[in-house]
Amino acid sequence: MRIAVDAMGGDYAPGEIVRGVVDLTSRADFDDHIILVGDQPRIETALIELGGKIGDKVSIRHTTEVIEMDDHPASAVRKKRDSSLVVCGDMVRDGEADGTISAGSTGAAMAVAAMRIGRIPGIERPAIASQMPTLKGRCLMLDMGANVDCTPQNLLQFALMGSVYAEHVIGVPEPTVGLLSVGTEDTKGNELTKATFELLKNSPLRFKGNIEGKDVFEHTTDIVVCDGFAGNVLLKTAESISEMLLGLLTTEIDALGDGILEKVQPVILNLVRRIDYAEQGGAPLLGVNGVSVIAHGRSKARAIGNGIRLTISAAKSGYVNAIKKELPTIAGERRGV
Amino acid sequence: MRIAVDAMGGDYAPGEIVRGVVDLTSRADFDDHIILVGDQPRIETALIELGGKIGDKVSIRHTTEVIEMDDHPASAVRKKRDSSLVVCGDMVRDGEADGTISAGSTGAAMAVAAMRIGRIPGIERPAIASQMPTLKGRCLMLDMGANVDCTPQNLLQFALMGSVYAEHVIGVPEPTVGLLSVGTEDTKGNELTKATFELLKNSPLRFKGNIEGKDVFEHTTDIVVCDGFAGNVLLKTAESISEMLLGLLTTEIDALGDGILEKVQPVILNLVRRIDYAEQGGAPLLGVNGVSVIAHGRSKARAIGNGIRLTISAAKSGYVNAIKKELPTIAGERRGV
Repeated sequence: MRIAVDAMGGDYAPGEIVRGVVDLTSRADFDDHIILVGDQPRIETALIELGGKIGDKVSIRHTTEVIEMDDHPASAVRKKRDSSLVVCGDMVRDGEADGTISAGSTGAAMAVAAMRIGRIPGIERPAIASQMPTLKGRCLMLDMGANVDCTPQNLLQFALMGSVYAEHVIGVPEPTVGLLSVGTEDTKGNELTKATFELLKNSPLRFKGNIEGKDVFEHTTDIVVCDGFAGNVLLKTAESISEMLLGLLTTEIDALGDGILEKVQPVILNLVRRIDYAEQGGAPLLGVNGVSVIAHGRSKARAIGNGIRLTISAAKSGYVNAIKKELPTIAGERRGV
Repeated sequence: MRIAVDAMGGDYAPGEIVRGVVDLTSRADFDDHIILVGDQPRIETALIELGGKIGDKVSIRHTTEVIEMDDHPASAVRKKRDSSLVVCGDMVRDGEADGTISAGSTGAAMAVAAMRIGRIPGIERPAIASQMPTLKGRCLMLDMGANVDCTPQNLLQFALMGSVYAEHVIGVPEPTVGLLSVGTEDTKGNELTKATFELLKNSPLRFKGNIEGKDVFEHTTDIVVCDGFAGNVLLKTAESISEMLLGLLTTEIDALGDGILEKVQPVILNLVRRIDYAEQGGAPLLGVNGVSVIAHGRSKARAIGNGIRLTISAAKSGYVNAIKKELPTIAGERRGV
């Protein structure tokens, strides 16, 4: 697989992006190809510093512009045609790359997906799908913030796309679907979820009904669908509560003295790793007509490496074509709206 | 103050409800009056067992019916006129009690508030206000689930009611207001929050703009407004992540052996207490024309005691009248919708 990596996107670009690529491609079992997209002199300097080199596994595609975090996403994508992010998208569209990943502006990556790569025909809105840590592994949740206002039809499509992705990329056989609501009873929810419930119930998907926030972490279902507003609130709440609790705990155990923190710290660090949302490396934009993965803006080398591996797996799985194939199975439900 | 306590509501009723009342009223500094509303023989038996007695501080109001958790809220309130919950509401409406608290069905308590006590004139939807634990104490968040579909006007009213309650009951001088959204920039949000942003910006309230899930726990503002769907998702996520993390941590530290858990446990328990959502005892239904507090269904004696104290403070503060007085200050914004 050839993966276009946005070398200029993210808080630690290009240094940590290049480091992630060098670390990954120096592994003996790596036999794909990374195209570092961005400012060639800066990328080359970083490559040399880190002992990487251009060759079978790594190449550079020079671009002259960068989309900044405070640029307006859509207009930046329209104007900065030679930005690393836009060129990454164009390479996927034109078949020069099998997938792309960026740690830059999520809004701009969404805009590139919509305006340069395009949507899968029939998909109304692409969604960001994140793997949330649970007591039994990870569950796939979407949408995590791409669409703050959704229709029941959008959520039905999210459920289908999530099911296909979970099966093909994560390797979950017969994935189950839950609908995020305010209670588990069938009648609980707001107007959006109540209408979505009916669509899901009548679909061929493995729908298990309404679930609550806590069910996400107990892994009641393999996939959780919700609008991007609720998903984003849940994600940011989970992240900040975890950080707050483990931070308070570390401080207070440290205050106990007696070397206790040293003994407990491995347990805490293990837990931090387990719930580390950067661990998975990135979240795919499902519904885009190509493989496009968004990495966390704060990604360092390890996260970038994980993200690239995810992008490669996703590209190899052929999930985009599988979505195209499965989409007609919910067409009846779509007409029913 | 005379507080009507629903003795039949909650997972541990009437035993733990009566125990909470006995513990609270046996304190030398307690000089209010509790009316235990429910099945007189059962309440008397519990009172005798626990060493409590009828007198200046405690009386019983006999009722013959109970609203069960699986009753349909509105129809149960219509049919079971002699249920403890309905009678509690009627006592507040008729001035026989200065406030009421129940650990029974939240939906039924909402229905009693709407159908028996009534709303404050001009308030469109009452909201459940919870105090969320933060790094700097607690912040008041509403709505936590009473209204899963809201208008911008609803949220504006929530912000006003929360401000009045925070000032009068919690004792926060000049409370600040944040709007839960998916980013802190002014333009971030869904249709609901964008329209609400404009209303809040033009209101006399101390509006600090959009906040994210993490800001709730960092106590960026004293009050956080959101629709009941998002609020409920945030609350349940925060609860379950905390339980999951501290549970995993306890198990894994225990596995370290060497008596380490014994040393660390006080720190964990202290943290559990700090984030214990039952600690505050209950959440007021703001917008109701009287003091009505909802306690957690799993409340035991201590939570009930805390809840009754909260109900007494709320009744003494006169916040209901203060809301009536302040409501016209946002009338211009209401017309602007």
